[in-house]
Amino acid sequence: MKPALITLTTDFGLSDSYVSQMKGVILTISPDAVLIDVTHQIPPQDLAAAAAVLADAVGAFPAGTIHLAVVDPGVGTGRRPIALEALCENDGAELRFVAPDNGVLTRVLEGRSVKRAVRLAEPRFWRPNVSQTFHGRDLFGPVAAHWSRGVDLAEFGPPLDSPLIKLSLPAMVRDGRNIRGEVVRTDGFGNLITNVSAAELPEADWPRVVVEIGTQRIAGISRAYQDRGVGELLAVIGSSGMLEIAVCCGHAGEILAAWSGDKVVVRGIGP
Amino acid sequence: MKPALITLTTDFGLSDSYVSQMKGVILTISPDAVLIDVTHQIPPQDLAAAAAVLADAVGAFPAGTIHLAVVDPGVGTGRRPIALEALCENDGAELRFVAPDNGVLTRVLEGRSVKRAVRLAEPRFWRPNVSQTFHGRDLFGPVAAHWSRGVDLAEFGPPLDSPLIKLSLPAMVRDGRNIRGEVVRTDGFGNLITNVSAAELPEADWPRVVVEIGTQRIAGISRAYQDRGVGELLAVIGSSGMLEIAVCCGHAGEILAAWSGDKVVVRGIGP
Amino acid sequence: MKPALITLTTDFGLSDSYVSQMKGVILTISPDAVLIDVTHQIPPQDLAAAAAVLADAVGAFPAGTIHLAVVDPGVGTGRRPIALEALCENDGAELRFVAPDNGVLTRVLEGRSVKRAVRLAEPRFWRPNVSQTFHGRDLFGPVAAHWSRGVDLAEFGPPLDSPLIKLSLPAMVRDGRNIRGEVVRTDGFGNLITNVSAAELPEADWPRVVVEIGTQRIAGISRAYQDRGVGELLAVIGSSGMLEIAVCCGHAGEILAAWSGDKVVVRGIGP
Repeated sequence: MKPALITLTTDFGLSDSYVSQMKGVILTISPDAVLIDVTHQIPPQDLAAAAAVLADAVGAFPAGTIHLAVVDPGVGTGRRPIALEALCENDGAELRFVAPDNGVLTRVLEGRSVKRAVRLAEPRFWRPNVSQTFHGRDLFGPVAAHWSRGVDLAEFGPPLDSPLIKLSLPAMVRDGRNIRGEVVRTDGFGNLITNVSAAELPEADWPRVVVEIGTQRIAGISRAYQDRGVGELLAVIGSSGMLEIAVCCGHAGEILAAWSGDKVVVRGIGP
Repeated sequence: MKPALITLTTDFGLSDSYVSQMKGVILTISPDAVLIDVTHQIPPQDLAAAAAVLADAVGAFPAGTIHLAVVDPGVGTGRRPIALEALCENDGAELRFVAPDNGVLTRVLEGRSVKRAVRLAEPRFWRPNVSQTFHGRDLFGPVAAHWSRGVDLAEFGPPLDSPLIKLSLPAMVRDGRNIRGEVVRTDGFGNLITNVSAAELPEADWPRVVVEIGTQRIAGISRAYQDRGVGELLAVIGSSGMLEIAVCCGHAGEILAAWSGDKVVVRGIGP
Repeated sequence: MKPALITLTTDFGLSDSYVSQMKGVILTISPDAVLIDVTHQIPPQDLAAAAAVLADAVGAFPAGTIHLAVVDPGVGTGRRPIALEALCENDGAELRFVAPDNGVLTRVLEGRSVKRAVRLAEPRFWRPNVSQTFHGRDLFGPVAAHWSRGVDLAEFGPPLDSPLIKLSLPAMVRDGRNIRGEVVRTDGFGNLITNVSAAELPEADWPRVVVEIGTQRIAGISRAYQDRGVGELLAVIGSSGMLEIAVCCGHAGEILAAWSGDKVVVRGIGP
């Protein structure tokens, strides 16, 4: 049997050997596993950033993929190590996660229902001599590796006996024809990604809104990054289905001096 | 059948989940595909840089490898998505490319002849619900994945009915015993890579040239980076067969304050 | 037969195509090889950093893994290209290395005995037309690829006829109940990793030491990064078994303005 795909999301960076150590341990247990990096450049200990990146990534992977997320400031303390299966409410596809219970799964579980969840409590699936400082290598990675080989989730530990930790994340607010939201992150192109969902912005309304950020007003929502001239500001529905503010061939974050938490208003205009 | 190797060259960066989304979609279609990153750190929208990096990379891969290059400022506009097969004029090896038709293949097609080229026009090989902002994930990646599984190029769309877009790139000029060229990029070591080809500089001439950049004059061409003392300037034929200006154990770009576009002259001297 | 795993440690960076060229050549020779990046962000030509990162990495990989380390300022000069097998003194596990003989293996061979070592001298295992500037692609990579397919080490060249080059690295010094060491590197989290081994610090002594760096004094050794409050300084045994100085949820290197070479003293106190 081909092992399940495993994705990796961490704040380990790429300059040290930490990522490779986690991979080496996984491949020792599951030699045919295919490992795909989501990113290892989450800012250290930034759970909100990790939650957002992970939520963007998972929809592109086949059902049954194991998503290993290790942003773990509480390593070695009382936070629970967990694994869980979730079902997508749209298509019923199964997703699997291995992570510390610290909120890193908050966004990825929106619109998905948890089917089974366990606390990782069976050291026979861990590395011998678990360190207090690197559970990605010593505990989470090994569990993901065993899971990829077909071990059943229930083997890894008992069902959770209390709810998952959730991050408190900013929500957008609809107020008649207006929507108030905010920038949740800036991507590598400088695009400002907001928490305003495409579901709130049917295409018929695109010419009839003004998007406001700081002192800027953007008339209408564009279809593509080059629908305006080079250097011009625009609003567009990005690839993860959220409203983005961008500059054609430029870095909107730097040009507007805008970042996470900045308010964005989508104002309905005209008849 | 083992699927063809797929390489990836993009400006997506490594901090977001974009690269992983493209990989997840490819592996959903072609689960046994092997994916090799060329780089994801092309400066955003920098087609000339992408063209140069891609041209350096392809010679190291086996014949039949599919090179996916997604630097795509025009995503969602009228630029053509394409796929093509090219033959190397030296050894007849076949190379395959999937990319937007925006010039990103300009350098890699020098010295190679296009055998077949199509416009990607068959949505059955794409992801359902193609976005206007991420064709790497929704269109180019899926086509590369199907191609790796043995779908024939002709299935993806009709032959191109007009020439490929080409970037206008600086050419070197030979003037008797002198060659005038320029720096085309600085690599991660700080080496200044020029557009002067080794073919113009037979080894017998190496002691009989002076290489000029800015106010500096370098006597002769060296065989290796440590042929001069630590901190000394030297000229050398780099690994891609082009003249480079380097500093032994140092960063030539910073030390000379030189970069892309700076003029370089190779002057013949002596008898 | 499944080929041996190959790890890659270089100073090539991720912005150029150099890493991909090395991988393409390896996969041309050994198409089923699995390649794992340790890091490609060793500071250019920094052999001490490469030696430290490689030593941290190897313990996580299965026996028989081939570790390819190419930090090679002397490429094209007289330094020997080598390959060797080493045995771990603890568990007898076999490790394999391909590298230039320039000291990059100094740390990883501590506590391990060299079983067989050869000078790479058989061009039939190299790429045709070896460049003088990129032996990772043209020589080391191909040898690792052939080795992964089962070629015997002795095929690659004759046994070494003189000792390996060793880096002169700082050693810690024990002086009664005190230990004098230093910071050897700062990781991506900002943790200051020292050359003081956990073997010198039995857990019973943790409450009975003071760790000194610069003007700071840290009472006791903690079990985890969050054993102290956010922003507080602590000392902890890191995941590679060395004493680290960290700041809970912060970057100790920046906060203390400390870096490689800074002195660290562990002072025994109390009865």
